Amino acid sequence: MNASSDTNTTTATTPATSPVTVIGLGLMGSALAAALLDAGHPTTVWNRSPEKAKPLADRGAQVAATPADALAASDLVLACVLDHDALHAVLGPLAATGGLAGKSLVNLTTGTPEQAEEMARWAASHGADYLDGGIMTTPPGVGSPEMMFLYSGSEAVFAAHRDTLAALGDPLHLGTEPGLASLYDAALLGLMWAAFTGWLHGTALVTSRGTSAADFTRVALRWLNGAVSGFVSTYAPQVDAGRYPGDDATVDVQIAAIGHLIHAAEARGVDNALPELLKATMERAAAAGHGGDSYASVIEVLRGDR
Amino acid sequence: MNASSDTNTTTATTPATSPVTVIGLGLMGSALAAALLDAGHPTTVWNRSPEKAKPLADRGAQVAATPADALAASDLVLACVLDHDALHAVLGPLAATGGLAGKSLVNLTTGTPEQAEEMARWAASHGADYLDGGIMTTPPGVGSPEMMFLYSGSEAVFAAHRDTLAALGDPLHLGTEPGLASLYDAALLGLMWAAFTGWLHGTALVTSRGTSAADFTRVALRWLNGAVSGFVSTYAPQVDAGRYPGDDATVDVQIAAIGHLIHAAEARGVDNALPELLKATMERAAAAGHGGDSYASVIEVLRGDR
Repeated sequence: MNASSDTNTTTATTPATSPVTVIGLGLMGSALAAALLDAGHPTTVWNRSPEKAKPLADRGAQVAATPADALAASDLVLACVLDHDALHAVLGPLAATGGLAGKSLVNLTTGTPEQAEEMARWAASHGADYLDGGIMTTPPGVGSPEMMFLYSGSEAVFAAHRDTLAALGDPLHLGTEPGLASLYDAALLGLMWAAFTGWLHGTALVTSRGTSAADFTRVALRWLNGAVSGFVSTYAPQVDAGRYPGDDATVDVQIAAIGHLIHAAEARGVDNALPELLKATMERAAAAGHGGDSYASVIEVLRGDR
Repeated sequence: MNASSDTNTTTATTPATSPVTVIGLGLMGSALAAALLDAGHPTTVWNRSPEKAKPLADRGAQVAATPADALAASDLVLACVLDHDALHAVLGPLAATGGLAGKSLVNLTTGTPEQAEEMARWAASHGADYLDGGIMTTPPGVGSPEMMFLYSGSEAVFAAHRDTLAALGDPLHLGTEPGLASLYDAALLGLMWAAFTGWLHGTALVTSRGTSAADFTRVALRWLNGAVSGFVSTYAPQVDAGRYPGDDATVDVQIAAIGHLIHAAEARGVDNALPELLKATMERAAAAGHGGDSYASVIEVLRGDR
């Protein structure tokens, strides 16, 4: 607690005592409510199947009998339900009777950018401020300050409740366009699956010779977090500039090098679909005139005909 | 210089004064020779086109007139030429006249694991100790202590010359099997291309909405080096154990989630070949009975029918 909140501990806006409502108690919703309780927030929970609320009630949560009671308990309402339709099913009837008016609705339900935009318009039409969120961790990671929670939409909601949201993870506001958090979420998961699969392909390759996955992975993570991240940092401004100087590693050189990988995998019976796709993508970049450019130029073929 | 070398500065084995020969002065070979000169090693260089040696001569390198002179100058010989055939073309005639006998040959030429094994046998048959190497950086990164240089083969060569090799980057000995460094090299590059392409796909997605690549990349690198690396660390021992408990993120859940990515990319005209391949790979894992397992189980389908 900082100096200014020390002078102010009796008001409802002091972060550690400001009430929060959590709608939806799946694995993730339960983890959110638990982290808020751990941080000292009066936390009201509601779930369609009430038995999910029991462990949280044991930890001090107020269990609301109805969604209307849940919303009435707090200005800040976090929603984390199955999907977009489920969220409308819960909130729709309340909105019709004015229950959303004046609320700060933070939607952590997984969905598309278009669903986030629709929800922001809908919330505004019922008098609520809307923040969309993407949770970049699994339920056990909720509450760790190094885990990212991405938000987009209302800057006022973010500013007013930032300290409360920090109980869940590190809150980052990406911009006022409501779909941004969802778009980043999808983009970051895509990077994750690509990295996972590249790592597993390499692991399949080296473990075919008796090396352990753990030994290879120590080297692989150092590589990923060192040199590979360094290249990515160099390439990002090239993408923004639309110019891709291939000073020290051109697409043509990498097309030659990936042949070694494909050959080594083939010799060990390891599936080559991923390296073959990567090679074909590099070849498309070379065919488009980027053979002497850096790997960043591959974005030109991914963007297609926009 | 440590205490023991302080007492020993006049002998030829003191790292900073031990002579090294570098065969091959392309961009990478020249960077190797320059780093050795910077570290104070008497460095002899040879290249088929002698004009490449000029900048190194200006920095103090001895330029050998013939490969035989180059080999005679140092017990430690680093080779970094175009390919395996080029290496045989240079060293073959010398080996026939005993020029390799007693040498420590460190081959940093890019090649396959099989070529490394052949070269190790060939070197042994001519009386040389052999270490194969993989350089995990580009020429400008040579000399940085955080860059990895992977070695496999003779432990004696590695132990005797480790301090000298440390002038190039951080030397890691992976094992005595000569092909290991080359196998790791291919596997790590595969991880790099997969991560690059996943990052560029995500970048194409978010920049379609006006976000800058630099802004997205700051978040993407934090994600890659934090949560994603954490998952990989959890999954590596699962691969070694052959059991993939999907406690908090199953293949089935990720198959559902990648649908959001594919949908978002389609809506923005971004090429979906990579996410479609990743989805198909996950679906093969699920079809093989791993739907409730972690993503690490995908290695089972990559390994194919071995």
